Amino acid sequence: MGKIKVGILGSTGSVGQRYVNMLRDHPWFEVAALSASEASVGKKYREAAKWVLDKEMPEGMAEMRIVRATPTEIKGAGAELVFSALPSEVAKRTEMDMAEAGLFVVADTSAHRMDPDVPLVIPEVNFGHLDAIEAQRKKLGGFIVTGPNCTTIGLAVSLKPVQAEFGLRRVLVSTMQALSGAGFFGVPSMAIIDNLIPYIKNEEEKVASELLKILGSFRGGHFENASMKVGASCHRVCVLDGHTEAVFLETEKAATPDEVARCMADFASEPQRLRLPSAPERPIIVRDEPDRPQPRLDRLSGAPERAKGMATVVGRIRRESALDNGIKYVLLSHNTIRGAAGNAILIAECLKAKGII
Amino acid sequence: MGKIKVGILGSTGSVGQRYVNMLRDHPWFEVAALSASEASVGKKYREAAKWVLDKEMPEGMAEMRIVRATPTEIKGAGAELVFSALPSEVAKRTEMDMAEAGLFVVADTSAHRMDPDVPLVIPEVNFGHLDAIEAQRKKLGGFIVTGPNCTTIGLAVSLKPVQAEFGLRRVLVSTMQALSGAGFFGVPSMAIIDNLIPYIKNEEEKVASELLKILGSFRGGHFENASMKVGASCHRVCVLDGHTEAVFLETEKAATPDEVARCMADFASEPQRLRLPSAPERPIIVRDEPDRPQPRLDRLSGAPERAKGMATVVGRIRRESALDNGIKYVLLSHNTIRGAAGNAILIAECLKAKGII
Amino acid sequence: MGKIKVGILGSTGSVGQRYVNMLRDHPWFEVAALSASEASVGKKYREAAKWVLDKEMPEGMAEMRIVRATPTEIKGAGAELVFSALPSEVAKRTEMDMAEAGLFVVADTSAHRMDPDVPLVIPEVNFGHLDAIEAQRKKLGGFIVTGPNCTTIGLAVSLKPVQAEFGLRRVLVSTMQALSGAGFFGVPSMAIIDNLIPYIKNEEEKVASELLKILGSFRGGHFENASMKVGASCHRVCVLDGHTEAVFLETEKAATPDEVARCMADFASEPQRLRLPSAPERPIIVRDEPDRPQPRLDRLSGAPERAKGMATVVGRIRRESALDNGIKYVLLSHNTIRGAAGNAILIAECLKAKGII
Amino acid sequence: MGKIKVGILGSTGSVGQRYVNMLRDHPWFEVAALSASEASVGKKYREAAKWVLDKEMPEGMAEMRIVRATPTEIKGAGAELVFSALPSEVAKRTEMDMAEAGLFVVADTSAHRMDPDVPLVIPEVNFGHLDAIEAQRKKLGGFIVTGPNCTTIGLAVSLKPVQAEFGLRRVLVSTMQALSGAGFFGVPSMAIIDNLIPYIKNEEEKVASELLKILGSFRGGHFENASMKVGASCHRVCVLDGHTEAVFLETEKAATPDEVARCMADFASEPQRLRLPSAPERPIIVRDEPDRPQPRLDRLSGAPERAKGMATVVGRIRRESALDNGIKYVLLSHNTIRGAAGNAILIAECLKAKGII
Repeated sequence: MGKIKVGILGSTGSVGQRYVNMLRDHPWFEVAALSASEASVGKKYREAAKWVLDKEMPEGMAEMRIVRATPTEIKGAGAELVFSALPSEVAKRTEMDMAEAGLFVVADTSAHRMDPDVPLVIPEVNFGHLDAIEAQRKKLGGFIVTGPNCTTIGLAVSLKPVQAEFGLRRVLVSTMQALSGAGFFGVPSMAIIDNLIPYIKNEEEKVASELLKILGSFRGGHFENASMKVGASCHRVCVLDGHTEAVFLETEKAATPDEVARCMADFASEPQRLRLPSAPERPIIVRDEPDRPQPRLDRLSGAPERAKGMATVVGRIRRESALDNGIKYVLLSHNTIRGAAGNAILIAECLKAKGII
Repeated sequence: MGKIKVGILGSTGSVGQRYVNMLRDHPWFEVAALSASEASVGKKYREAAKWVLDKEMPEGMAEMRIVRATPTEIKGAGAELVFSALPSEVAKRTEMDMAEAGLFVVADTSAHRMDPDVPLVIPEVNFGHLDAIEAQRKKLGGFIVTGPNCTTIGLAVSLKPVQAEFGLRRVLVSTMQALSGAGFFGVPSMAIIDNLIPYIKNEEEKVASELLKILGSFRGGHFENASMKVGASCHRVCVLDGHTEAVFLETEKAATPDEVARCMADFASEPQRLRLPSAPERPIIVRDEPDRPQPRLDRLSGAPERAKGMATVVGRIRRESALDNGIKYVLLSHNTIRGAAGNAILIAECLKAKGII
Repeated sequence: MGKIKVGILGSTGSVGQRYVNMLRDHPWFEVAALSASEASVGKKYREAAKWVLDKEMPEGMAEMRIVRATPTEIKGAGAELVFSALPSEVAKRTEMDMAEAGLFVVADTSAHRMDPDVPLVIPEVNFGHLDAIEAQRKKLGGFIVTGPNCTTIGLAVSLKPVQAEFGLRRVLVSTMQALSGAGFFGVPSMAIIDNLIPYIKNEEEKVASELLKILGSFRGGHFENASMKVGASCHRVCVLDGHTEAVFLETEKAATPDEVARCMADFASEPQRLRLPSAPERPIIVRDEPDRPQPRLDRLSGAPERAKGMATVVGRIRRESALDNGIKYVLLSHNTIRGAAGNAILIAECLKAKGII
Repeated sequence: MGKIKVGILGSTGSVGQRYVNMLRDHPWFEVAALSASEASVGKKYREAAKWVLDKEMPEGMAEMRIVRATPTEIKGAGAELVFSALPSEVAKRTEMDMAEAGLFVVADTSAHRMDPDVPLVIPEVNFGHLDAIEAQRKKLGGFIVTGPNCTTIGLAVSLKPVQAEFGLRRVLVSTMQALSGAGFFGVPSMAIIDNLIPYIKNEEEKVASELLKILGSFRGGHFENASMKVGASCHRVCVLDGHTEAVFLETEKAATPDEVARCMADFASEPQRLRLPSAPERPIIVRDEPDRPQPRLDRLSGAPERAKGMATVVGRIRRESALDNGIKYVLLSHNTIRGAAGNAILIAECLKAKGII
């Protein structure tokens, strides 16, 4: 039985390269189309992409010719599903064009995340939101599923089991985000060496609104936000990959740090039960050393091999006496693997496992 | 009229070097004694200290001979006041020895900070706590005054005017601290390049307990803690100098971001009114760019020249809807200038201005 | 007597900002015109420049309006001399237009460096080359003087006294260059953290050709290259400011390391004799510690205050047995101060001292 | 047939950890003994080592108890060969004790490298030098084989085919060395952020003397140095792993850059012919991009999986007109894999393949 043919929109950028890297030898998917901006069309991927990963470019894809990000060219190449890592200025229109042409779009762009009929999915957290696809498909032919911002993902994963067991009243998060989150050319070296930048445009708003949608429910054809309060302060630090987040929270029901640690460590969900190829054995790895997680040491956590970088690593779970039922901890999540390409691929694996594609 | 002769205990370490640097050509103080560990005694300062600042070692002190940190040697050199940057394992005993021998000790070590009769002082914040010296002096002959942990100082300065005008109910702070806070040899490069360390031993406890003492009162011969709740999460990032802190707070009385900005920008206190040599014109500099303060660009803020690095820089003051009467902002404070040597020198200037020395 | 009015072409870039910073309160020059690209024309400098230096923008210039880089606008603002930090694609034409309109151009761009009638000047090294201006001025009305590439400057300064006393047969240099040499946006952080880039476009060729012109002679109206052989290997490392260079050389006459150190330390030239405002007391500072110069510690070397960053710091002078009459050493030169704006300002000071302007 | 039991001396340090990591699942060797300093003896490896690699500690070794570095304890644990990563102050004596007790010692310490009867081996370069073991074994019972300094290895590998085909007259190298070369605690972050250190103690002397021994011959029971001239300038830069070296050389016979590239790319030697488990398919990988090799992108080059970090990557091969028959290039070699543990393991594989052990 053949693999499902997929396309990558925006394949030459840094998230695009992560897709190319993670889809090499994927057991279920085969890359049939790579798109990039007009200047690259017709070139070999090898020539069009300035490859920045430390693993060599997969040989098969290196020789593929770049196509335009139009439904005609994508479908002409045989793809039925596309992963979108498009720049935000073109994502909104192009992703909708693809869906209207009957393609299945899995996007880690922000364009359609908050659309009322588009699910915003982290498979371990809100697998059920994929049910929203049905209505879209009827309307459009194809559909769009989105994955959240790289900062939201690790946070949402770590909160899910706490929400389920103890309830959440308030979440305050202060982030120390990696440079790759801004794209390869996003942060000049002169701006960040011996420095940090305490600001990332629109990030704090995205974290709050996305988290509420993800931790909320999908019932009767509608998304309903979760009810906790969420506040964020977002900062860029001199780390290549891996977002670290200091989380303060107030639970509904009192919980000890040990209880929180246990419920996180025990957490598993549909992707684990379905043994999806990119699902980490454990969505949350709880470490008990006093000084972990650390981005360089822990960002590629997760097993099996294909799921390296897919687990959220949590440490320093402790009481926060300044809040009622207060708990604080530190989490780490790989921002271009779990936070982008990896989450989207895991969504696609869910679609296949559910028989949607 | 002659200058007051002072000694520096622990003069070869990185905070000791800051003292040496900041006391060059001080209008009121003259360095008469430099102490260091036994292996350095008798050597010239030039030979004993591996100088790590980018400004050249002051010529006068370069030729001074290192003495022992004993009252006899310090007093023999003519000093009446000592600044202590001693390692913690010897600070407790040595500082007390000095005070009992009639010397005036200004310490930025943690040894005596929480002693019930020792003031913990940031001159702009709790100048009045210096009144506690009187009782000590009667008992010991000399006295000990301490300055707080480098992480507490900027936070306390930024909170003081807010506390005064709106009241404080809750403070949550997440820090991104500089490497120099751990001393020159404290953090190996292999540990921090492309990384961060989400843990600093005892730091979170110090921030909470020190802040409550500083923002509390001294009345009837006793210190009384402030009543707000304080929680901290402390992290080390790859920045040479300058602690950045993301602060979330709940005020007693509702305040808009503009009102908070104004009360911070207008803040001035005794050191400003007394025009002390090391007092910054403004204790708090409020910036309105979206992406400031940044450690490399802002850590040496403050005027006049002698007060560079003495101001707390605050930016991104905004509402925090996840808290009642919630406000959040980012602050930056130079950890070895304002956070250590500079604060201690400013305390000594207060002592002189008050006629205590 | 009034100051000479000057303009800065390309004033908003990172070298442009160095000019703005170094010309604040200059005793001889007053900034009358700031130019930048079309999008900035008419804006205040404060709005047009994203200021990246850690010293505050000079207040006077912050309020100046950006003008076009045309002779009419520059002369309209009253400037008679312009410093050019123009992007290379427009420098060639614009600098010539200015000279033809009677303006005096001091450029640290590469456009006209190798022109047969344009002097390429480091005042301490080849002051005499300024005589070439005379012929240009007759032809054009104004004239162009250029300063060399930031990598060439420190090297040429360090070689000049050795050439004079011992002769030079062969120079091999391997550089470790700072990020600011590529401009503020030149090197993405993702490209250089935990990394180095062993390539800088055209740099090796520039070092060789410029060095031969500078160390050569100007006689009978013509420049003649020096006769030594020069080879370079250029690399970018993770340092903000300050180019470090490892130099291997073969002298004509045998010299001991001590003799080389002495001739470098004793070196002084016209700018020193004329006591020009931006001339360092000593063009070369020789350090004898085994591990210096280091960029962060030594890049701002030089006295007086105005000349900080103008001295070349040399260390580790030792024999190189793999070459005949072999000597090797390490040098450090601040690439945006001595290597760009500072050298140009020193050239302008020479022009004034010689009565040319 | 069982695996050969080996011990690791100095197993908790950063090179020791590389051995532990590289010997997990080795097809020929099994770790039977881990030694460390007295304070660690008896502890589990998990407790004794502060693990700093980003790959998890191998489970089997994590539970092993640390033993003393004495022949009795090592042999008691069943080991017949030991890899030595001992600190230099104890290496000389301990390694000799082991050899005298009949153990086979493969050391990447410097203690015995220049001993007249001890081979200094890079298997691809001077496999034949292993013949010197015979005489040692007769004398001592066991023997010592050493691997060179991390800076020498990549250089020697890259020079070997050039020496063989064109002859070498002169080699000048300027290095940009990684932090891990100084050990985990070797370089404080405060010393190297936004900085470089142009000095590594004894390194330049080691490169010259070791290179001549390695590229020399072993004939009639004696080592004879190669006859070229060698000079080095060594510098530490802010890179975690991977030494980069800028090489200038003079060949005996003229060679074009293409000829040099070809002879390097075609180079293969005994380890390749014997298909040793840790031998890279190609000892030298020649890259033709203008800006490679780069440490972060290329340090783990080499195939198969077990040989990642074992290849020397060479780029920018070009003519150097400042030298007769001049060639220059840039090389990269992983300093703790190929430059230490990996080279020693490859030596041990040679010993086994030759039937010596």
